[in-house]
Amino acid sequence: MITSKDNELIKETAKLIKSAKARKDKHLFVAEGLRLCRDAAESGAHIVFFLYTGQAAEKNKDDFALIRSVADKSEEISRELYNKISDTNSPQGFLCAIDTGSNTAMSEIKSGGKYAALENIQDPSNLGTILRTAEALGIDGVILSHDCCDIYSPKVVRGSMGAVFRLPFMQTEDFTAWIQECTATGVSTYASTPHEAENIRQIDFSGGGIMLIGNEGNGLKSETIEACTRRVKIPMFGRAESLNAAAAAAILMYELMNHSERKQGGEFFGRKY
Amino acid sequence: MITSKDNELIKETAKLIKSAKARKDKHLFVAEGLRLCRDAAESGAHIVFFLYTGQAAEKNKDDFALIRSVADKSEEISRELYNKISDTNSPQGFLCAIDTGSNTAMSEIKSGGKYAALENIQDPSNLGTILRTAEALGIDGVILSHDCCDIYSPKVVRGSMGAVFRLPFMQTEDFTAWIQECTATGVSTYASTPHEAENIRQIDFSGGGIMLIGNEGNGLKSETIEACTRRVKIPMFGRAESLNAAAAAAILMYELMNHSERKQGGEFFGRKY
Repeated sequence: MITSKDNELIKETAKLIKSAKARKDKHLFVAEGLRLCRDAAESGAHIVFFLYTGQAAEKNKDDFALIRSVADKSEEISRELYNKISDTNSPQGFLCAIDTGSNTAMSEIKSGGKYAALENIQDPSNLGTILRTAEALGIDGVILSHDCCDIYSPKVVRGSMGAVFRLPFMQTEDFTAWIQECTATGVSTYASTPHEAENIRQIDFSGGGIMLIGNEGNGLKSETIEACTRRVKIPMFGRAESLNAAAAAAILMYELMNHSERKQGGEFFGRKY
Repeated sequence: MITSKDNELIKETAKLIKSAKARKDKHLFVAEGLRLCRDAAESGAHIVFFLYTGQAAEKNKDDFALIRSVADKSEEISRELYNKISDTNSPQGFLCAIDTGSNTAMSEIKSGGKYAALENIQDPSNLGTILRTAEALGIDGVILSHDCCDIYSPKVVRGSMGAVFRLPFMQTEDFTAWIQECTATGVSTYASTPHEAENIRQIDFSGGGIMLIGNEGNGLKSETIEACTRRVKIPMFGRAESLNAAAAAAILMYELMNHSERKQGGEFFGRKY
C-alpha cells in the first residue's frame, strides 16, 4: 500500500490533476470517482494505472474487480493520502490515469455527419456540459480550437459525465483555417451569432454539417464567422442579452440533430405536406 | 467610511451572503459586482443599501452615480473589509442588498402564458442558468418548489445574470398540489421525463402551458408526473443516460417557446399547410 506523497506514482498523479502541460507531456489524464472510473472501464478507455483505497474496494467489489481487470497497473493507497491528492469535495477512493490516445480521436468529417465545433470555450464546466449534451443528443463528433480550456482537466472530465471517453473529438491548430477548408469542400458550416443571422428554427439541417459555438463572452471570432456557409441564431424573445454558452450549445445542437425529425414524422408534421 | 467588521451593516451583509434563513428573515438578498449592481438599478429593484469601495466608485463614476441615486442608503467601505466579506473570486467593490419583495413576484398564471416549473433543483449554478435561459427565451414566469435551492443565494443571483431582478417567479408550498390545481383548471402541464413520454418535437405548445423540470439526479417525483396533463421527453440518439438539468431545461423551454413559430412562419414551414 502506498502511504507516502513522495511515491513516484503519487507525484505523477498530483501533476496530472493540476497541470495541462503534464497531461500533454505524459499523454495521460485523470478520472476520479466510482462512476467515472467504471465508465472509463466500460467504455474501453486505456487505463494506465488505477489507484484505490481499501475501503472503496471493499465497498464496491464488482466495480473494483472490473476496473482492476482492465487497468495496466493497480495500486492500493492509504485513505489519508487519497484525500490529500483528490480534486473532488467528497473523495470516493477510486482514481484512474487514462491514456489521452484512447479510442475517441477523430481525424475527419464524414459526409452527412453532424458535428459541433467549439472556439475558445474557457470555462471547464461549460466544456464538460457541452460534451455531455453532444453525446446525449447523438452528435457525431466535436472539434475544438487550440485555445479552448483543456478537455482533459478534471473538471471537464467530471462535467462530461464520461463523454470524454466515448465522444469522438479532435483539436485543430488553426481553427479558422480548418473551418475554411470544410466550407470549401462543401461541408455546411453554421456560425452561431446574434448578428445578421437566420433563425435556426427555419433552417434545413438534414444534410448535416458543423455547428460552431464561440467563446462565453465574445462569441465566435469575426474571421471564423466569415469562413462559414451561414450565420444562425436562436430566436429569443426576452430582455436578456445572451444565453450561457452551454445552454446555447444545447439548443443549437438539438436543432442540428432534430431537424429531420420535424420534417419526416410526428403527429403534427408527418404526412401533411 | 466603514472599516470595522463589527459594524452592524457589515455583519448583516455577511449573514445575507451566507445564510438562506437570514435572507428570508430580513427579506433581503445580496448582488455583487459592477454589472449585477447596475442591472439591479436599471431593472428597478429596490436597493435597500449599497456598499462600495472608493476605488470602485472612482473607476465607474456613471454606474456609481446611478446606483447611489436609487439606493435607500449608500456607504463607502474600505477595500480590505470589502475583500473580506465578498463572496466572489475577484471582488469588484460594489455590493447591493436588495428587497426580496422587489418587482418580480408572480401570483397567478395567465391564460395562454408559457411557464417553467422547477421541482427540487439543488445546484445553484443550474438554477441560475435556468433563470437566465428562461428570461432570454421569453418565458412568462418560473414556479419553484419549496425544496429548490435558495433563489436568492449569491451563486444563483450571479448565474442568472440578473434575471432574478426581472423574471416573474413564485414559490409554492405544495408543488404537486399546485400543479394538480393548474391541470384541473385546464392549464396544460408538461412533465419532462424519459419514461413513457411523447417526443417534445411533436407536441403543439401553441396554447401555452407549464413545462416541469425535475431534480438533477432523480427527475420529477412520480406524484408530480401523475398530476400533469402530458409526459414529454427530449429525443436523444446518443449513449449517455441524461442531460445536465440546465441543458435539458434550455431545450425544453426553447421548444415550449418556439413551437408556434414553426407552424406559422419561416422559409421551410410557412404557407405549406
